[in-house]
Amino acid sequence: MTTTQLTQHYSQQFDADLNQIRNQVAQMGALVEEQLQHALIALQSSTPAQAKEVIANDYKVNAYDVDIDEQCTRILALRHPTASDLRLVLAVIKTTADLERIGDEAKRIARMAAHINARYTGSNLNNRIEHLGRQVGTMLHRTLQAFMQLDIAEAIAVAREDDRVDREYEGLMRESMTYMMEDPRAIPKLMDIIWSARSLERIGDRCCNICEYVLYFVKGKDVRHISLEKIQQTFAG
Amino acid sequence: MTTTQLTQHYSQQFDADLNQIRNQVAQMGALVEEQLQHALIALQSSTPAQAKEVIANDYKVNAYDVDIDEQCTRILALRHPTASDLRLVLAVIKTTADLERIGDEAKRIARMAAHINARYTGSNLNNRIEHLGRQVGTMLHRTLQAFMQLDIAEAIAVAREDDRVDREYEGLMRESMTYMMEDPRAIPKLMDIIWSARSLERIGDRCCNICEYVLYFVKGKDVRHISLEKIQQTFAG
Repeated sequence: MTTTQLTQHYSQQFDADLNQIRNQVAQMGALVEEQLQHALIALQSSTPAQAKEVIANDYKVNAYDVDIDEQCTRILALRHPTASDLRLVLAVIKTTADLERIGDEAKRIARMAAHINARYTGSNLNNRIEHLGRQVGTMLHRTLQAFMQLDIAEAIAVAREDDRVDREYEGLMRESMTYMMEDPRAIPKLMDIIWSARSLERIGDRCCNICEYVLYFVKGKDVRHISLEKIQQTFAG
Repeated sequence: MTTTQLTQHYSQQFDADLNQIRNQVAQMGALVEEQLQHALIALQSSTPAQAKEVIANDYKVNAYDVDIDEQCTRILALRHPTASDLRLVLAVIKTTADLERIGDEAKRIARMAAHINARYTGSNLNNRIEHLGRQVGTMLHRTLQAFMQLDIAEAIAVAREDDRVDREYEGLMRESMTYMMEDPRAIPKLMDIIWSARSLERIGDRCCNICEYVLYFVKGKDVRHISLEKIQQTFAG
């Protein structure tokens, strides 16, 4: 091989490595999405068996996390990526950390679902948590798509969605407290619902984090701790 | 300069860069510790002014996070660290992310402190949350020391401490629920105490994360998702 051929070969191999890592993030994302969906179904239908399955499967999410992290470290050590390649590797490291913790929240929701032997009936709360779950599930799905397609318009749109999730969460919280005051015996059950809602709200936050990494990777700009208005101004046009 | 002198100069400069980053992590850690202490004092003494100061100062923690992250990226791009130097840079990136979120939890506690206009008296809860706060504050302090001194025995000891924090948190939670059932009018105030306790429990978890990065850096082994017993066996002697 000539030097040019060697360089070309090397660069193709590098691209293949980076693509493989992105595919693995997609697989990990799909698994985390599934975990969240199953946890929500278990919560709604009060099926402890399904809840236990989610808890048992969390190790698979963790395995992806460690595996992708190791691959990223190897790429950094051997290939010395710079510019956008380096940003991709760093964005992947941070994204998998957040995905892993979204998996933890799904596990927490499943634990609550295993607790709650009967749904808290006689209130609007079940509808509200179902609605919040759908909102957050959609947010996670769109986040993963924005990551895979490097779609910054979508990433910004998803981050905007988080305000609605927060408002829904606040409403649910206030309503839960009224039920607690009306029927103190239901407090332990209502606390389980509150913890599940809190986990969903946190998943929304983590989706926002991932959207920020997408912006960082595509635009080379760290947008954490910057308001959405400023981000949109910066990236407009 | 000869080539040897150049290499030596280059390597000294690199060491200086890495040291500077570690010092900045120490400064960031000291700031986060202070934020937590002030938030806890505000919570105990019901001084909204101090609570507001903690909230206002959170931007400083975020600034450290972005700044240290940028320096790490620059080092990765320009110096291509390998082996333990690479592990140090990656451990720093992850540690600052956790420190930033410990700062967020301190801000959340401060928000609760600004809420609670009067302490929830007539119960043991104030003592309990004070005790939990002290436990977690000590855990954070020891975590930062383990990080700076690369002390893996201390890192493992701190991670062990988290079990005690979790037990204390569970006890506090159960006691809060009894008070809620006894006196439903106190529910909103008790919920503020519960959220503060939850934040403290999360800070304990994040201290554990940082301790795991210390082990990863010193031993080159990713110990996340591995039980403490196994970690101790692996690193014994």
